[in-house]
Amino acid sequence: MTAARPRSAERRADILRAAFEVIAARGYRGASLAAVAERAGLTQQGLLHHFPSKAALLVAVLEERDRWDTGGGAAGRADWRLDLLATLVDYNAMRPGVVQTFSALLGESVTDGHPARDFFTRRYARVRADMAGLLRAEFGERLPGGLTPERAAPLLTAVLDGLQYQWLLDPGAVDMAAAFRDFLGLLGVEEAK
Amino acid sequence: MTAARPRSAERRADILRAAFEVIAARGYRGASLAAVAERAGLTQQGLLHHFPSKAALLVAVLEERDRWDTGGGAAGRADWRLDLLATLVDYNAMRPGVVQTFSALLGESVTDGHPARDFFTRRYARVRADMAGLLRAEFGERLPGGLTPERAAPLLTAVLDGLQYQWLLDPGAVDMAAAFRDFLGLLGVEEAK
Repeated sequence: MTAARPRSAERRADILRAAFEVIAARGYRGASLAAVAERAGLTQQGLLHHFPSKAALLVAVLEERDRWDTGGGAAGRADWRLDLLATLVDYNAMRPGVVQTFSALLGESVTDGHPARDFFTRRYARVRADMAGLLRAEFGERLPGGLTPERAAPLLTAVLDGLQYQWLLDPGAVDMAAAFRDFLGLLGVEEAK
Repeated sequence: MTAARPRSAERRADILRAAFEVIAARGYRGASLAAVAERAGLTQQGLLHHFPSKAALLVAVLEERDRWDTGGGAAGRADWRLDLLATLVDYNAMRPGVVQTFSALLGESVTDGHPARDFFTRRYARVRADMAGLLRAEFGERLPGGLTPERAAPLLTAVLDGLQYQWLLDPGAVDMAAAFRDFLGLLGVEEAK
Protein backbone atom coordinates (compact mmCIF):
# COMPACT_ATOMS: atom_id res chain seq x y z
CA MET A 1 0.00 0.00 0.00
CA THR A 2 2.50 2.58 1.16
CA ALA A 3 4.80 1.64 -1.71
CA ALA A 4 2.34 3.38 -4.00
CA ARG A 5 2.78 6.67 -2.17
CA PRO A 6 5.27 9.12 -3.61
CA ARG A 7 8.60 8.87 -1.84
CA SER A 8 8.54 12.51 -0.82
CA ALA A 9 5.19 12.14 0.94
CA GLU A 10 6.51 9.14 2.82
CA ARG A 11 9.57 11.03 3.91
CA ARG A 12 7.40 13.91 5.02
CA ALA A 13 5.25 11.58 7.10
CA ASP A 14 8.38 10.10 8.69
CA ILE A 15 9.58 13.57 9.64
CA LEU A 16 6.24 14.57 11.12
CA ARG A 17 6.09 11.39 13.19
CA ALA A 18 9.63 12.00 14.42
CA ALA A 19 8.81 15.62 15.25
CA PHE A 20 5.74 14.49 17.17
CA GLU A 21 7.84 12.21 19.33
CA VAL A 22 10.60 14.73 19.95
CA ILE A 23 8.09 17.44 20.90
CA ALA A 24 6.30 15.05 23.27
CA ALA A 25 9.62 14.37 24.98
CA ARG A 26 11.09 17.86 25.06
CA GLY A 27 8.47 20.40 24.09
CA TYR A 28 8.90 22.63 21.07
CA ARG A 29 11.49 24.99 22.55
CA GLY A 30 13.46 22.01 23.85
CA ALA A 31 13.29 20.16 20.52
CA SER A 32 16.12 20.50 18.02
CA LEU A 33 15.94 19.94 14.28
CA ALA A 34 19.00 17.74 14.68
CA ALA A 35 17.11 15.42 17.03
CA VAL A 36 14.11 15.25 14.68
CA ALA A 37 16.36 14.54 11.68
CA GLU A 38 18.21 11.81 13.54
CA ARG A 39 15.00 10.11 14.62
CA ALA A 40 13.66 10.27 11.06
CA GLY A 41 16.90 8.80 9.69
CA LEU A 42 17.82 11.93 7.73
CA THR A 43 20.51 14.54 7.76
CA GLN A 44 19.47 17.95 9.01
CA GLN A 45 20.00 19.19 5.45
CA GLY A 46 17.59 16.53 4.23
CA LEU A 47 15.00 17.58 6.76
CA LEU A 48 15.30 21.25 5.75
CA HIS A 49 14.52 20.21 2.18
CA HIS A 50 11.03 19.22 3.37
CA PHE A 51 10.51 21.87 6.07
CA PRO A 52 12.46 25.10 5.73
CA SER A 53 12.40 25.97 9.45
CA LYS A 54 11.59 24.63 12.89
CA ALA A 55 8.47 26.82 13.02
CA ALA A 56 7.30 25.51 9.64
CA LEU A 57 7.71 21.97 10.95
CA LEU A 58 5.69 22.84 14.05
CA VAL A 59 2.82 24.25 12.03
CA ALA A 60 2.82 21.12 9.85
CA VAL A 61 2.72 18.93 12.97
CA LEU A 62 -0.28 20.82 14.32
CA GLU A 63 -2.13 20.74 11.01
CA GLU A 64 -1.39 17.06 10.53
CA ARG A 65 -2.69 16.33 13.98
CA ASP A 66 -5.96 18.11 13.24
CA ARG A 67 -6.27 16.09 10.03
CA TRP A 68 -5.76 12.74 11.74
CA ASP A 69 -8.53 13.31 14.15
CA THR A 70 -9.88 15.91 16.48
CA GLY A 71 -8.61 14.41 19.70
CA GLY A 72 -5.83 15.25 22.06
CA GLY A 73 -7.12 18.46 23.47
CA ALA A 74 -10.49 19.56 22.31
CA ALA A 75 -12.73 19.19 19.34
CA GLY A 76 -12.21 20.75 15.97
CA ARG A 77 -14.85 19.45 13.60
CA ALA A 78 -18.36 20.58 12.95
CA ASP A 79 -19.83 17.14 12.30
CA TRP A 80 -19.39 15.85 15.82
CA ARG A 81 -21.88 14.49 18.21
CA LEU A 82 -21.63 14.72 21.95
CA ASP A 83 -21.51 10.97 22.48
CA LEU A 84 -18.53 10.78 20.14
CA LEU A 85 -16.76 13.28 22.34
CA ALA A 86 -16.93 10.87 25.28
CA THR A 87 -15.64 8.11 23.02
CA LEU A 88 -12.77 10.35 21.97
CA VAL A 89 -11.74 10.76 25.60
CA ASP A 90 -11.68 6.95 25.94
CA TYR A 91 -9.56 6.79 22.82
CA ASN A 92 -7.16 9.49 24.03
CA ALA A 93 -6.63 7.53 27.24
CA MET A 94 -5.02 4.84 25.05
CA ARG A 95 -2.55 7.17 23.36
CA PRO A 96 -0.69 9.20 25.95
CA GLY A 97 2.00 10.19 23.44
CA VAL A 98 -0.40 12.16 21.25
CA VAL A 99 -2.04 13.77 24.27
CA GLN A 100 1.39 14.65 25.65
CA THR A 101 2.48 16.38 22.43
CA PHE A 102 -0.72 18.41 22.36
CA SER A 103 -0.62 19.33 26.05
CA ALA A 104 3.04 20.34 25.96
CA LEU A 105 2.42 22.58 22.94
CA LEU A 106 -0.69 24.15 24.42
CA GLY A 107 1.31 25.01 27.55
CA GLU A 108 4.17 26.50 25.58
CA SER A 109 1.85 28.41 23.28
CA VAL A 110 1.01 30.96 26.00
CA THR A 111 4.65 32.06 26.26
CA ASP A 112 5.71 35.21 24.42
CA GLY A 113 5.93 35.03 20.64
CA HIS A 114 5.45 31.26 20.45
CA PRO A 115 4.93 30.05 16.86
CA ALA A 116 1.95 27.88 17.92
CA ARG A 117 0.11 30.73 19.62
CA ASP A 118 -1.93 31.83 16.59
CA PHE A 119 -2.77 28.24 15.78
CA PHE A 120 -4.16 27.58 19.26
CA THR A 121 -5.96 30.92 19.49
CA ARG A 122 -7.79 30.28 16.22
CA ARG A 123 -8.36 26.65 17.12
CA TYR A 124 -10.02 27.41 20.44
CA ALA A 125 -12.29 30.03 18.90
CA ARG A 126 -13.39 27.42 16.37
CA VAL A 127 -13.68 24.66 18.98
CA ARG A 128 -15.89 26.78 21.23
CA ALA A 129 -18.11 27.70 18.28
CA ASP A 130 -18.33 24.06 17.14
CA MET A 131 -19.12 22.84 20.65
CA ALA A 132 -21.84 25.46 21.06
CA GLY A 133 -23.21 24.46 17.66
CA LEU A 134 -23.44 20.78 18.47
CA LEU A 135 -25.00 21.44 21.87
CA ARG A 136 -27.57 23.73 20.27
CA ALA A 137 -28.34 21.15 17.56
CA GLU A 138 -29.09 18.51 20.19
CA PHE A 139 -30.63 20.57 23.00
CA GLY A 140 -31.75 23.95 21.70
CA GLU A 141 -31.17 27.23 23.49
CA ARG A 142 -30.76 25.82 26.98
CA LEU A 143 -29.17 22.59 28.16
CA PRO A 144 -30.99 20.45 30.76
CA GLY A 145 -28.38 21.57 33.33
CA GLY A 146 -29.35 25.21 32.80
CA LEU A 147 -26.55 26.74 30.72
CA THR A 148 -26.83 28.12 27.21
CA PRO A 149 -24.70 26.39 24.55
CA GLU A 150 -22.37 29.42 24.44
CA ARG A 151 -21.72 29.31 28.18
CA ALA A 152 -21.26 25.54 28.26
CA ALA A 153 -18.75 25.48 25.37
CA PRO A 154 -15.70 27.03 27.12
CA LEU A 155 -16.32 24.81 30.16
CA LEU A 156 -16.54 21.67 28.03
CA THR A 157 -13.27 22.61 26.35
CA ALA A 158 -11.59 23.48 29.65
CA VAL A 159 -12.57 20.17 31.22
CA LEU A 160 -11.12 18.21 28.29
CA ASP A 161 -7.80 20.06 28.46
CA GLY A 162 -7.54 20.26 32.25
CA LEU A 163 -8.24 16.56 32.78
CA GLN A 164 -5.49 15.69 30.31
CA TYR A 165 -2.85 17.45 32.41
CA GLN A 166 -3.93 15.69 35.58
CA TRP A 167 -4.05 12.38 33.77
CA LEU A 168 -0.65 12.77 32.06
CA LEU A 169 0.96 13.62 35.41
CA ASP A 170 -0.65 10.72 37.26
CA PRO A 171 -2.55 8.27 35.03
CA GLY A 172 -3.47 6.02 37.95
CA ALA A 173 -5.02 8.83 39.97
CA VAL A 174 -7.41 10.27 37.36
CA ASP A 175 -9.95 8.38 35.27
CA MET A 176 -10.21 10.88 32.45
CA ALA A 177 -13.14 9.21 30.67
CA ALA A 178 -15.21 8.73 33.83
CA ALA A 179 -14.57 12.32 34.92
CA PHE A 180 -15.60 13.64 31.51
CA ARG A 181 -18.85 11.65 31.68
CA ASP A 182 -19.47 13.13 35.12
CA PHE A 183 -19.16 16.55 33.54
CA LEU A 184 -21.60 15.66 30.76
CA GLY A 185 -23.93 14.58 33.57
CA LEU A 186 -23.63 18.03 35.17
CA LEU A 187 -24.47 19.69 31.87
CA GLY A 188 -27.49 17.42 31.79
CA VAL A 189 -26.60 15.97 28.42
CA GLU A 190 -25.75 12.47 29.71
CA GLU A 191 -26.67 10.76 32.94
CA ALA A 192 -23.85 10.52 35.49
CA LYS A 193 -23.39 6.86 36.41
CA MET B 1 10.64 48.09 55.57
CA THR B 2 12.60 46.09 53.03
CA ALA B 3 15.82 47.73 54.26
CA ALA B 4 15.45 45.62 57.41
CA ARG B 5 15.60 42.38 55.41
CA PRO B 6 18.95 40.67 55.14
CA ARG B 7 20.64 41.53 51.88
CA SER B 8 20.84 37.92 50.78
CA ALA B 9 17.05 37.44 51.14
CA GLU B 10 16.48 40.58 49.07
CA ARG B 11 18.78 39.34 46.36
CA ARG B 12 17.04 35.97 46.41
CA ALA B 13 13.67 37.66 46.00
CA ASP B 14 15.02 39.69 43.06
CA ILE B 15 16.23 36.52 41.38
CA LEU B 16 12.94 34.71 41.87
CA ARG B 17 11.01 37.66 40.46
CA ALA B 18 13.33 37.75 37.45
CA ALA B 19 13.00 33.99 36.96
CA PHE B 20 9.23 34.30 37.06
CA GLU B 21 9.29 36.84 34.27
CA VAL B 22 11.73 34.95 32.10
CA ILE B 23 9.76 31.69 32.48
CA ALA B 24 6.51 33.47 31.62
CA ALA B 25 8.14 34.75 28.43
CA ARG B 26 10.07 31.65 27.33
CA GLY B 27 9.01 28.67 29.43
CA TYR B 28 11.49 26.80 31.57
CA ARG B 29 13.31 24.99 28.77
CA GLY B 30 13.56 28.23 26.82
CA ALA B 31 14.80 30.20 29.83
CA SER B 32 18.53 30.67 30.36
CA LEU B 33 20.27 31.40 33.64
CA ALA B 34 22.07 34.19 31.80
CA ALA B 35 18.75 35.88 30.99
CA VAL B 36 17.54 35.55 34.59
CA ALA B 37 20.84 36.92 35.94
CA GLU B 38 20.74 39.87 33.56
CA ARG B 39 17.18 40.75 34.50
CA ALA B 40 18.06 40.52 38.21
CA GLY B 41 21.11 42.73 37.69
CA LEU B 42 23.60 40.02 38.62
CA THR B 43 26.35 38.07 36.96
CA GLN B 44 25.56 34.44 36.25
CA GLN B 45 28.19 33.56 38.85
CA GLY B 46 26.35 35.71 41.37
CA LEU B 47 23.09 33.96 40.57
CA LEU B 48 24.67 30.54 41.02
CA HIS B 49 25.76 31.62 44.49
CA HIS B 50 22.07 31.75 45.46
CA PHE B 51 20.76 28.89 43.33
CA PRO B 52 23.23 26.17 42.35
CA SER B 53 21.36 25.07 39.19
CA LYS B 54 18.55 25.98 36.85
CA ALA B 55 16.43 23.14 38.26
CA ALA B 56 17.01 24.38 41.82
CA LEU B 57 15.86 27.84 40.74
CA LEU B 58 12.73 26.37 39.17
CA VAL B 59 11.79 24.48 42.32
CA ALA B 60 12.29 27.67 44.35
CA VAL B 61 10.05 29.59 41.95
CA LEU B 62 7.31 26.99 42.30
CA GLU B 63 7.57 26.86 46.08
CA GLU B 64 7.63 30.65 46.34
CA ARG B 65 4.55 30.83 44.21
CA ASP B 66 2.68 28.43 46.46
CA ARG B 67 3.72 30.51 49.45
CA TRP B 68 2.50 33.78 47.96
CA ASP B 69 -0.93 32.45 47.43
CA THR B 70 -2.75 29.52 46.03
CA GLY B 71 -3.72 31.03 42.70
CA GLY B 72 -2.60 30.60 39.15
CA GLY B 73 -3.76 27.11 38.51
CA ALA B 74 -5.63 25.38 41.23
CA ALA B 75 -5.87 25.44 44.96
CA GLY B 76 -3.24 24.27 47.39
CA ARG B 77 -4.42 25.12 50.88
CA ALA B 78 -6.68 23.29 53.24
CA ASP B 79 -8.30 26.35 54.82
CA TRP B 80 -10.12 27.50 51.70
CA ARG B 81 -13.73 28.11 51.14
CA LEU B 82 -15.51 27.68 47.87
CA ASP B 83 -16.53 31.33 47.60
CA LEU B 84 -12.88 32.33 47.96
CA LEU B 85 -12.08 30.13 44.99
CA ALA B 86 -14.34 32.24 42.77
CA THR B 87 -12.69 35.37 44.15
CA LEU B 88 -9.30 33.90 43.33
CA VAL B 89 -10.33 33.48 39.70
CA ASP B 90 -11.31 37.18 39.65
CA TYR B 91 -7.93 38.00 41.13
CA ASN B 92 -6.04 35.84 38.63
CA ALA B 93 -7.77 37.66 35.80
CA MET B 94 -5.88 40.76 36.94
CA ARG B 95 -2.43 39.17 36.85
CA PRO B 96 -1.87 37.43 33.54
CA GLY B 97 1.90 37.20 34.12
CA VAL B 98 1.55 34.92 37.12
CA VAL B 99 -1.05 32.78 35.36
CA GLN B 100 1.18 32.60 32.29
CA THR B 101 4.17 31.37 34.30
CA PHE B 102 2.07 28.70 35.94
CA SER B 103 0.36 27.58 32.73
CA ALA B 104 3.61 27.41 30.76
CA LEU B 105 5.23 25.30 33.48
CA LEU B 106 2.25 22.99 33.81
CA GLY B 107 2.38 22.39 30.06
CA GLU B 108 6.09 21.69 30.06
CA SER B 109 5.87 19.47 33.12
CA VAL B 110 4.29 16.64 31.13
CA THR B 111 7.35 16.34 28.87
CA ASP B 112 9.90 13.64 29.65
CA GLY B 113 12.07 14.10 32.72
CA HIS B 114 10.96 17.67 33.39
CA PRO B 115 12.19 18.98 36.74
CA ALA B 116 8.74 20.36 37.62
CA ARG B 117 6.95 17.08 37.01
CA ASP B 118 7.18 15.75 40.56
CA PHE B 119 6.16 19.11 41.94
CA PHE B 120 3.00 19.22 39.81
CA THR B 121 2.15 15.56 40.37
CA ARG B 122 2.27 15.99 44.14
CA ARG B 123 0.55 19.34 43.94
CA TYR B 124 -2.43 18.02 42.00
CA ALA B 125 -2.88 15.07 44.34
CA ARG B 126 -2.98 17.54 47.23
CA VAL B 127 -5.23 19.98 45.40
CA ARG B 128 -7.78 17.28 44.56
CA ALA B 129 -7.77 16.08 48.17
CA ASP B 130 -8.14 19.65 49.49
CA MET B 131 -10.95 20.43 47.05
CA ALA B 132 -12.80 17.24 48.00
CA GLY B 133 -12.30 18.15 51.66
CA LEU B 134 -13.75 21.60 51.35
CA LEU B 135 -16.69 20.39 49.27
CA ARG B 136 -17.43 17.72 51.88
CA ALA B 137 -17.16 20.22 54.73
CA GLU B 138 -19.76 22.44 53.09
CA PHE B 139 -22.06 19.91 51.44
CA GLY B 140 -21.52 16.46 52.93
CA GLU B 141 -21.30 13.28 50.87
CA ARG B 142 -23.16 14.52 47.81
CA LEU B 143 -23.25 17.94 46.18
CA PRO B 144 -26.58 19.42 45.12
CA GLY B 145 -25.61 18.75 41.48
CA GLY B 146 -25.31 15.02 42.22
CA LEU B 147 -21.56 14.31 42.34
CA THR B 148 -19.59 13.14 45.35
CA PRO B 149 -16.80 15.49 46.53
CA GLU B 150 -14.18 13.05 45.19
CA ARG B 151 -15.71 13.07 41.71
CA ALA B 152 -16.21 16.81 41.63
CA ALA B 153 -12.62 17.62 42.71
CA PRO B 154 -10.75 16.68 39.50
CA LEU B 155 -13.38 18.51 37.41
CA LEU B 156 -13.11 21.66 39.53
CA THR B 157 -9.34 21.58 39.12
CA ALA B 158 -9.56 20.89 35.38
CA VAL B 159 -11.95 23.79 34.80
CA LEU B 160 -9.62 26.21 36.60
CA ASP B 161 -6.61 25.13 34.55
CA GLY B 162 -8.39 24.74 31.23
CA LEU B 163 -10.06 28.15 31.39
CA GLN B 164 -6.69 29.77 32.04
CA TYR B 165 -5.30 28.50 28.73
CA GLN B 166 -8.27 29.76 26.77
CA TRP B 167 -8.11 33.10 28.57
CA LEU B 168 -4.36 33.56 28.14
CA LEU B 169 -4.67 32.87 24.42
CA ASP B 170 -7.62 35.22 23.93
CA PRO B 171 -8.50 37.34 26.98
CA GLY B 172 -11.32 39.14 25.19
CA ALA B 173 -13.05 35.91 24.14
CA VAL B 174 -13.26 34.15 27.52
CA ASP B 175 -14.61 35.57 30.78
CA MET B 176 -12.75 33.25 33.12
CA ALA B 177 -14.53 34.34 36.30
CA ALA B 178 -18.03 34.15 34.80
CA ALA B 179 -17.30 30.73 33.30
CA PHE B 180 -16.01 29.44 36.62
CA ARG B 181 -19.17 30.66 38.37
CA ASP B 182 -21.20 28.85 35.71
CA PHE B 183 -19.35 25.68 36.65
CA LEU B 184 -20.03 26.19 40.36
CA GLY B 185 -23.67 26.54 39.35
CA LEU B 186 -23.52 23.15 37.60
CA LEU B 187 -22.06 21.56 40.72
CA GLY B 188 -24.98 23.09 42.56
CA VAL B 189 -22.77 24.94 44.99
CA GLU B 190 -23.56 28.43 43.69
CA GLU B 191 -26.44 29.68 41.60
CA ALA B 192 -25.59 30.36 37.97
CA LYS B 193 -26.57 33.95 37.17
